[in-house]
Amino acid sequence: MATEVGTVLIVTVTVPHLDLTVDPVELTAALVDIPSVSRDEATIATAVEQALRTQAPHLEVVRNGDAVLARTRLGRASRVVLAGHLDTVPINDNLPLRRTGTGEATVLHGCGTVDMKSGDAVMLHLAATVREPRHDLTFVFYDCEEIDAALNGLGRIERELPDWLAGDLAVVCEPSNASIEAGCQGTMRIEIRIEGKRAHTARGWMGRNAIHGAGEVLRRLADYEPRIVDIDGCRYHEGLQAVAIEGGVAGNVVPDSCVVRINHRFAPDRSLEQATDHLREIFDGFDITVVDGAAGALPGLHAPAAGELVAAAGGDVAAKLGWTDVARFAALGMPAVNFGPGDPTLAHTQQEHVRVADITRCARVLRDFLA
Amino acid sequence: MATEVGTVLIVTVTVPHLDLTVDPVELTAALVDIPSVSRDEATIATAVEQALRTQAPHLEVVRNGDAVLARTRLGRASRVVLAGHLDTVPINDNLPLRRTGTGEATVLHGCGTVDMKSGDAVMLHLAATVREPRHDLTFVFYDCEEIDAALNGLGRIERELPDWLAGDLAVVCEPSNASIEAGCQGTMRIEIRIEGKRAHTARGWMGRNAIHGAGEVLRRLADYEPRIVDIDGCRYHEGLQAVAIEGGVAGNVVPDSCVVRINHRFAPDRSLEQATDHLREIFDGFDITVVDGAAGALPGLHAPAAGELVAAAGGDVAAKLGWTDVARFAALGMPAVNFGPGDPTLAHTQQEHVRVADITRCARVLRDFLA
Repeated sequence: MATEVGTVLIVTVTVPHLDLTVDPVELTAALVDIPSVSRDEATIATAVEQALRTQAPHLEVVRNGDAVLARTRLGRASRVVLAGHLDTVPINDNLPLRRTGTGEATVLHGCGTVDMKSGDAVMLHLAATVREPRHDLTFVFYDCEEIDAALNGLGRIERELPDWLAGDLAVVCEPSNASIEAGCQGTMRIEIRIEGKRAHTARGWMGRNAIHGAGEVLRRLADYEPRIVDIDGCRYHEGLQAVAIEGGVAGNVVPDSCVVRINHRFAPDRSLEQATDHLREIFDGFDITVVDGAAGALPGLHAPAAGELVAAAGGDVAAKLGWTDVARFAALGMPAVNFGPGDPTLAHTQQEHVRVADITRCARVLRDFLA
Repeated sequence: MATEVGTVLIVTVTVPHLDLTVDPVELTAALVDIPSVSRDEATIATAVEQALRTQAPHLEVVRNGDAVLARTRLGRASRVVLAGHLDTVPINDNLPLRRTGTGEATVLHGCGTVDMKSGDAVMLHLAATVREPRHDLTFVFYDCEEIDAALNGLGRIERELPDWLAGDLAVVCEPSNASIEAGCQGTMRIEIRIEGKRAHTARGWMGRNAIHGAGEVLRRLADYEPRIVDIDGCRYHEGLQAVAIEGGVAGNVVPDSCVVRINHRFAPDRSLEQATDHLREIFDGFDITVVDGAAGALPGLHAPAAGELVAAAGGDVAAKLGWTDVARFAALGMPAVNFGPGDPTLAHTQQEHVRVADITRCARVLRDFLA
């Protein structure tokens, strides 16, 4: 809203008001209706910051870029860090929020319902309402998780405010069907380039077909038997998948180059180096290039705080299969788990939706654990 | 050159003069120095037309687009059609013509020296100087051979002036190292699409990897043993080559589609339909789509005129491996051979060059055959 007063232009930016004391389901709905596609997160960050400063006076609050951090300083023996990103993937004609069903069977539909404003809502509600927690608490609401890893707000916080990430257990409230998912798998992308020799296809025997040469790589991929690794009762199901293949010069030319791109998901009992060595063995005789990679995270369920959380959740725990920011905390030496409402396979889809029962369960389990 | 006279603009287009009676080596040089990239052939066509009209009064001459046709009407028992295209691929910093070496070892360098102005020069020289041939002769200088087959001047002539292509033997003066190359192989392009099922690579077992599925196609390609077929003493070496492969969705997605494009070269004892059936057998279990194809041409060396030409060339004859316009004449029911100066593997290269000995030999053999 702009009002011209004489020659002075007064611009008022309306920041939505968030009531942190309402049911986390309603708080989810309020957060979903503040669009926050990656890099366009200032409004939601300011709303979160103002709500915490005014409704959670027991917390120390700082703003860092479009991240908002809040913590208790109660001198408890241990500290739990809860983390959630505020950004979403691009809106896909799936805002504003829609509701279907009634009561506990109600479902919230829309961009961010699963990934991960329902998790953020649970965190914000606990931040304002659990004023005497058993552990000291740090809440991290961060930016740019859905885009290039180099821009991830958690990375910036690690560089600029490292003590804000320190603790004895990290709970990342990414969707996990409201179950504890512990640790996460590592991920690595490699490229195998097969070289050949060009020739006219009418004289094919004068060349060496690089695409034909890639057949052996595909055979090894098809024959690969991925490990299923059990750690602390969590089963990590590995994988080795070609994600792209590309080769060819022209319709009458024997191609001299073919590239296969492969994604390897590996259990957290292997380091990035060990996983690389494993792939060098599998593709012995081929020239492999590591494009990028990130180590996984061990479940770390032997840590006392982790055990308490698992108990509060009823004792069930599963392996996290995808790579999440849990691994960033693991790299800092902390046990870290995923625990959040919603089905992760719905993330990034137009049909993204969350059952309110999941939100209610996550809020209850975390309250039992922390209060 | 444009001269303004009052308000009248007189435009004079200079058409290079071609002397058809000089040594075909010099005539080659003159043709090479008239740039004639496909679709920019009016100048060379007009030069050829004017030269034939003025220096070969014994021939009936017609112009059709940028093609020039000329023929005798002597009532001989048989007719030989000689064909050559006037266009070249784009100039690649390889004009004007350069010469190296001396005497019979002289080499002419430049765009079109091989493909195929040396062949055109031999044809033009014979058109002007063999006035009492043993066979009636038709000379076809045509346009747009180097681009999309639908634009090929020979196709237009076939539609508009079909009687000009009729005869008992066709000699296409495309480069053949000054040897008789008989018939030509067929060519066919097919596409095999492998379908799969998308999934996140962290849960790869929920999908079906289409790229892995392409491995079996590549295995069959690598294992394929091409036939070598002997027809009339010509050995046709078949081939089956992947010329492109393409698949992949994103770095963390099990791909649901992969396409392999394959070029098959087949001996002229098989029709296009038979070759298609053969590929359906080879790739049994896969869904193959024929993208395009062209039948080959049998050597047809049993025809009397063909036998005379082979004898004039010293008796040696080989199979043409690439697909050329020879097949168009074969489709009209005529025996057809390739016979022209220059190494076909130099065609379309920046280093294109022809030995004058090749030009001289081709001119001598054809004169012996025709005069």
